[in-house]
Amino acid sequence: MIAGINKPRMVIDKTICLKNIKKMAEKAHRHGLIFRPHFKTHQSAEVGNWFRDFGVESITVSSVTMASYFAKHSWKDILVAFPVNILELDDINRLASEIKLSLLLESEETFKFLSNKLQHPCNFYIKIDTGYHRTGLDASNTKIISSILFKSQHDPMLSFKGFLVHSGNTYDAKSKQEIGQIHLQSIRKLQALKEEFIHAFPGLLLSIGDTPSCSIMEDFSGIDEIRPGNFVFYDVMQNELGSCHPDEIASAVLCPVVAKHMERNEIVIYGGAVHLSKDFVLNSKGEAMYGLISLLFKNNSWSRPLEETFIRKLSQEHGIIRTNKETYDRIHIGNLLAVLPVHSCLVSDLLIRQSIIWD
Amino acid sequence: MIAGINKPRMVIDKTICLKNIKKMAEKAHRHGLIFRPHFKTHQSAEVGNWFRDFGVESITVSSVTMASYFAKHSWKDILVAFPVNILELDDINRLASEIKLSLLLESEETFKFLSNKLQHPCNFYIKIDTGYHRTGLDASNTKIISSILFKSQHDPMLSFKGFLVHSGNTYDAKSKQEIGQIHLQSIRKLQALKEEFIHAFPGLLLSIGDTPSCSIMEDFSGIDEIRPGNFVFYDVMQNELGSCHPDEIASAVLCPVVAKHMERNEIVIYGGAVHLSKDFVLNSKGEAMYGLISLLFKNNSWSRPLEETFIRKLSQEHGIIRTNKETYDRIHIGNLLAVLPVHSCLVSDLLIRQSIIWD
Repeated sequence: MIAGINKPRMVIDKTICLKNIKKMAEKAHRHGLIFRPHFKTHQSAEVGNWFRDFGVESITVSSVTMASYFAKHSWKDILVAFPVNILELDDINRLASEIKLSLLLESEETFKFLSNKLQHPCNFYIKIDTGYHRTGLDASNTKIISSILFKSQHDPMLSFKGFLVHSGNTYDAKSKQEIGQIHLQSIRKLQALKEEFIHAFPGLLLSIGDTPSCSIMEDFSGIDEIRPGNFVFYDVMQNELGSCHPDEIASAVLCPVVAKHMERNEIVIYGGAVHLSKDFVLNSKGEAMYGLISLLFKNNSWSRPLEETFIRKLSQEHGIIRTNKETYDRIHIGNLLAVLPVHSCLVSDLLIRQSIIWD
Repeated sequence: MIAGINKPRMVIDKTICLKNIKKMAEKAHRHGLIFRPHFKTHQSAEVGNWFRDFGVESITVSSVTMASYFAKHSWKDILVAFPVNILELDDINRLASEIKLSLLLESEETFKFLSNKLQHPCNFYIKIDTGYHRTGLDASNTKIISSILFKSQHDPMLSFKGFLVHSGNTYDAKSKQEIGQIHLQSIRKLQALKEEFIHAFPGLLLSIGDTPSCSIMEDFSGIDEIRPGNFVFYDVMQNELGSCHPDEIASAVLCPVVAKHMERNEIVIYGGAVHLSKDFVLNSKGEAMYGLISLLFKNNSWSRPLEETFIRKLSQEHGIIRTNKETYDRIHIGNLLAVLPVHSCLVSDLLIRQSIIWD
């Protein structure tokens, strides 16, 4: 048993995290970009503090609740990169009185609501959809964009800050080349918007967010700000996309082995959907993989992911690992295995409060 | 805004819950079955207490942590229906000193470990695999089963209680008829085991668990105990399987509408994977549905699920609802919608601690 761990526990390798942060901070600096990392991945004041040494002062979060949490932990410049939930007006007003708060808008209706009800000044970005089609105003919808922007010129509470996009469609890309195409298409649309509005709003920023683009691309023409989040931990999904190397995955979930099934080379761990979430990637045979498996070393680190070994199914508390005969024979009931998560953001949401930091 | 709700909140309709509990308790009574409900679905002391009025004294949980929680809330007869995690020996010993604790075994290795280390008597069930292939000893593996059982006859700490199965393969069934086939096949295998071992262990029980079988079937020949859990809330998955009627779904997640996209009849809610989990069911077109949508009524209840309306995608905080033109026009930014969850157990795990009970 490693350091008294006897049930599923998230561990964070601080050395790897710091390398990931340094690399992204240097990339932002090299390209002259504002680095406003997304803290939804870790949701942790302690991990957040590691960013300060790299000059980070402005951050992104995905809810007002998270903004309140980080404001309490001395962050003074926070963007809530989620369409404003008007039901949280009171919390927004409170936060806006305490910190430099940036909001995300994408409708005249919400603009009008805030314009009437905000009691303290806020910045706002307009959320632009450049092809992901999750949410945001289509980049070509300059009618509504203009309408909001020109109203904001006379608004004492709402200052336009820039256009924001999250190209989440890079997550469906089949290759780095395809990620590149999505990224370039997206920044071209943003550049066109910038050209159209820069004269009226000389300070406007273009802000992009997805970890695959921020990790892989080197062309950030016209972009002013990046907001990647996942890169702090990376995960199996990012590895599949080519955003990271397996050695850059900085979090794992330690799980006890509770049963073995020789006839099908399967190992059952205590570690299920309530620890690992249910995101999956497909392997080359089209099988869903809910996590990869590494062995633990005594010096608080884990091996490269084991070959031909993955979680094939999760129920609430069970994880079912399929492996080969050789690996099957090396693993015993009562061992702890390190699960490399498919989606580290969701695992953090579930487990970060009881996580362990290895440094 | 309903009762100050301004972010995703789980609500429980107590009236529906009580009906669901009453129906299952009566069914158990009618068939002469011990009713040992699985409390992993709700993980709530308050919801747990509702079972006491229906004569429930023995319960099932899926972790030692959950057993400790319910032991603290005065439950004295608890089965941990998860293969023993030997790393939790200390907690098992503590619990066994406080309550009547039943464990789940499926290997000689774990039996031997416990036999040497238990300090207080426990009951144990043998986990049998009748076709689900998640975990457990194959029903035909009487060699290992006998070996464990006959060792237990001389063990002062481990008393054999019965054979336990969870036919989770009913969740993959395409029809009630298929659920029936899986159920009957499963109980036939259990009956054969009972016949083989009843003379040596006259009190042995057969215990089954899955909500689809317990909800739909009326043939429980030879079975002594049922352990369904999900029925207390039911959910969209159970509705799809035919285990329940939509009016029997007893929990929902209230989510604020934050954006609308007319060109594709889509509505964005504040309510994502961290609130709803990522389990899904497929609709008749093969599209993944991560939740169905109901309208809220002022008397603290929700409508039948809206037709042609479902969550097509979840990210960490966003839910994307696809609907038809008519429903699209009825819903506005700032409204609260009730999401009927696909898998209520996972939603409870995420949200029950801040949930609201409507009675």
